Amino acid sequence: MLNDLELTDHKEVVKVGDVVIGDNDLVVMAGPCAVESREQLLTAAREVKKCGGQILRGGAFKPRTSPHSFQGLGEEGLKLLAEAREETGLKIVTELLDATDIELVNQYADILQIGSRNMQNYALLKKLGQLDTPVMLKRGYAATIKEWLLAAEYVVSHGNPNVILCERGIRTFETATRYTLDLNAIALIKAEFKLPIIIDPSHGTGKRNLVNPLAKAGVSAGADGVMVEIHPNPEEALCDGGQSLTMKGFSKLMHDLTGVADVVNKKLA
Amino acid sequence: MLNDLELTDHKEVVKVGDVVIGDNDLVVMAGPCAVESREQLLTAAREVKKCGGQILRGGAFKPRTSPHSFQGLGEEGLKLLAEAREETGLKIVTELLDATDIELVNQYADILQIGSRNMQNYALLKKLGQLDTPVMLKRGYAATIKEWLLAAEYVVSHGNPNVILCERGIRTFETATRYTLDLNAIALIKAEFKLPIIIDPSHGTGKRNLVNPLAKAGVSAGADGVMVEIHPNPEEALCDGGQSLTMKGFSKLMHDLTGVADVVNKKLA
Amino acid sequence: MLNDLELTDHKEVVKVGDVVIGDNDLVVMAGPCAVESREQLLTAAREVKKCGGQILRGGAFKPRTSPHSFQGLGEEGLKLLAEAREETGLKIVTELLDATDIELVNQYADILQIGSRNMQNYALLKKLGQLDTPVMLKRGYAATIKEWLLAAEYVVSHGNPNVILCERGIRTFETATRYTLDLNAIALIKAEFKLPIIIDPSHGTGKRNLVNPLAKAGVSAGADGVMVEIHPNPEEALCDGGQSLTMKGFSKLMHDLTGVADVVNKKLA
Amino acid sequence: MLNDLELTDHKEVVKVGDVVIGDNDLVVMAGPCAVESREQLLTAAREVKKCGGQILRGGAFKPRTSPHSFQGLGEEGLKLLAEAREETGLKIVTELLDATDIELVNQYADILQIGSRNMQNYALLKKLGQLDTPVMLKRGYAATIKEWLLAAEYVVSHGNPNVILCERGIRTFETATRYTLDLNAIALIKAEFKLPIIIDPSHGTGKRNLVNPLAKAGVSAGADGVMVEIHPNPEEALCDGGQSLTMKGFSKLMHDLTGVADVVNKKLA
Repeated sequence: MLNDLELTDHKEVVKVGDVVIGDNDLVVMAGPCAVESREQLLTAAREVKKCGGQILRGGAFKPRTSPHSFQGLGEEGLKLLAEAREETGLKIVTELLDATDIELVNQYADILQIGSRNMQNYALLKKLGQLDTPVMLKRGYAATIKEWLLAAEYVVSHGNPNVILCERGIRTFETATRYTLDLNAIALIKAEFKLPIIIDPSHGTGKRNLVNPLAKAGVSAGADGVMVEIHPNPEEALCDGGQSLTMKGFSKLMHDLTGVADVVNKKLA
Repeated sequence: MLNDLELTDHKEVVKVGDVVIGDNDLVVMAGPCAVESREQLLTAAREVKKCGGQILRGGAFKPRTSPHSFQGLGEEGLKLLAEAREETGLKIVTELLDATDIELVNQYADILQIGSRNMQNYALLKKLGQLDTPVMLKRGYAATIKEWLLAAEYVVSHGNPNVILCERGIRTFETATRYTLDLNAIALIKAEFKLPIIIDPSHGTGKRNLVNPLAKAGVSAGADGVMVEIHPNPEEALCDGGQSLTMKGFSKLMHDLTGVADVVNKKLA
Repeated sequence: MLNDLELTDHKEVVKVGDVVIGDNDLVVMAGPCAVESREQLLTAAREVKKCGGQILRGGAFKPRTSPHSFQGLGEEGLKLLAEAREETGLKIVTELLDATDIELVNQYADILQIGSRNMQNYALLKKLGQLDTPVMLKRGYAATIKEWLLAAEYVVSHGNPNVILCERGIRTFETATRYTLDLNAIALIKAEFKLPIIIDPSHGTGKRNLVNPLAKAGVSAGADGVMVEIHPNPEEALCDGGQSLTMKGFSKLMHDLTGVADVVNKKLA
Repeated sequence: MLNDLELTDHKEVVKVGDVVIGDNDLVVMAGPCAVESREQLLTAAREVKKCGGQILRGGAFKPRTSPHSFQGLGEEGLKLLAEAREETGLKIVTELLDATDIELVNQYADILQIGSRNMQNYALLKKLGQLDTPVMLKRGYAATIKEWLLAAEYVVSHGNPNVILCERGIRTFETATRYTLDLNAIALIKAEFKLPIIIDPSHGTGKRNLVNPLAKAGVSAGADGVMVEIHPNPEEALCDGGQSLTMKGFSKLMHDLTGVADVVNKKLA
């Protein structure tokens, strides 16, 4: 099925400063779904740092299904992310929604995240090809693996080889979980294409009590890293509270991942 | 399921010059998948006109799964569309892929088409809200009806009430057809929201021999119009030849639609 | 995709007494989801007859998702169906769930219905191959067209060529309707295999207000007949009330189908 | 979604002789897809035993999509399974397809397997409720978790509490793998229902090179055991050779599972 797929010049290992993705390190990206306030973000960032994560996530521009939902803090959110980086030394991954914001977001982000809904926004992908900044391309929730790899090819063939994939669940008939996390895809991409790939069990399950087992499963299947949503107070989150880990749950996850990493010959940096 | 959905100010009938969509007229949009050459486009346009269609379709910017596939003629394609309009009097519907091209495409198009892959490109949708030009919003191939209506709401709530929906098939497990045309969605949207909606049986089936029966089915289910791909010489098409009707097939379709329109109290204008 | 599929000896036209399925007649099967009582069934049967239907449907054995739901009246239900046939002259289609009941159900039914959940119950299909009674094989709600045709082949290759297909909706990600009726499948099967096929818009939509438009759409796409659920008092139905037409709705549907049949060169018998 | 689901009397731990499923032991079931010959089966059985597996799998009755494919050796296959048990001490799990064979298959099997296609064959499930033999109920490839649990409820509420679930992949739009293994389901069922559950990465991926990582992932997500297909010579297998592990691959898997079991506080018996 994928035999005829020829990819050009993708990097198997992507470097984000001193953080290495795609090699033997297991990388952890964590933070709130949306940046909501200085206090919320810094609390989360300190926890990520304390527990050994390397990258802070947090959305300043949010792609919401309804135009009437909270759309993010915009540049103010980016500034808070930069402040958290300054204090903790964590790298920043944040979503870019609109090509007109590339320059702005690129000033703040260490990794530019392209969300599921924009995976086939080819105009945007082509423009990302003109940068050097690593791009984390989330799988479209109804994209085949082939379409996903070809979307990555849009970025790479336009000049930027630093693409990191992120599996975040696909849409199926099952309604008991928000999406169905496709771990087959993780194993297949590592076996046949060797590209750097991250697992996102928060969106992939939509349920807090499934994040820990699916994070472990993703690493066992071969993922190079884990991205999870955490929140100091999930009940008050403006976005996706039901799938966010508490600080305590995150600490437990980091402990558990240490054991799993060992089994697959990786190591939590 | 959709009971809680409140939409604002959507028009039930959208006017494109003297063409009325959403009322008792059955509107036919036809033309090649991609504008390839002056001759190809004008031949198709004359056929559309001769058979009684009102709107000429043709892509100048093409969203292709692979960056290595033909990406469209760009502005040259738009100029050819304008020439065809000049000669035939048909209106033009053409796809807009990139927010940076809004001004350009808006100079030529009578209807701005937003494709399936951009249905949740909210940055683009918000900008379309600042125009008056009618927008035809194709359903994302994995979007629920609710998500689709909320995507339309992005355009309308930002100021442009002239949104036309277009059902073009959803992604399912079935592989014998390219997509599964969801006619339940047509009937549900007409019954519960009364929004103008078009059926695209070319993309919805991916097979030339299924276009005629599914076009008739779509109109029977309540669609306000039909969009089909036609090509003077489908075997040589640069894009989607296998699902394009020949000129003869299109002529037959127009004849058949006359009968179906009558049954549902519509009339081919 | 289906090019390699070789079917043996399937009949293109199946006769049920003087009712002909697969030819130019449009056949209507109607009745309650489940046989509930003598009065309920006879009221429905008289309406079917009066409005011009040919076949009475009604379940005596019901395949319910939960073992704690109403499972049908069993043989008592079959006797009531026979009484309704006696009075009205309608033929009977009813579901067979269990191979041990073949002899029993076969005494009463003119058409043996195999439901979606049993489409790949190959042990049962093989046994049906030993009968002459027509079999209506509903599509598994997650079966590809190819798997469906091969399930039919189990019956035919074991000796019974009288198989009627029935499209009743497939399972997709969409939740606003109960299933997604796949009309592509109707057109494809008529175009490429010429087998007799019925459309079931009641299960295929799960919503009463969508049954009429989807029935018309199914016939426009090429279906040889329509199966719908009707109930004298849908609000009190023990099963699937929300998708059952009222007597008045059924009468309206029969009127509308007359027009559609005409367009596709069929005729309501 | 599943809050309203009340299950009766399911066992959280099922015993098959001295093999315990659902507790802290990690159980391995392995063997060929179909029993093909004495030599093939005994070679596989000895390998399973040598590497530390507890249960031998092998189909004597095969549910094939086409009636023209190999349908299994029938009772002769069952006798070979019994011989392999006699020699190795392994328990036997084998599929039951037809209620008329219950008595026969029950004489030989330690666990009765109900395949994906029969998950909603309620007539069969009710009859299994009259036995004491453990039943392994594979998930229908398009069944929701709720439907699956309610199918198990058919067995339990009719008197047999010894049901083991088996996740074997669901049907999605992705075509690069045979099915999409749903590990969310494993974690959810362990977290919310505590039922014994096995993972089948052979059917769930359809590709030999993905079996090892997905087996590890399944155990990390909480599965109580793993079922894999192995074959002395996969290239010559009559069924599913492409997803069968070689003897060497199986030995490697058993080694890897030891490490993973440890991380989730289980132990390979």
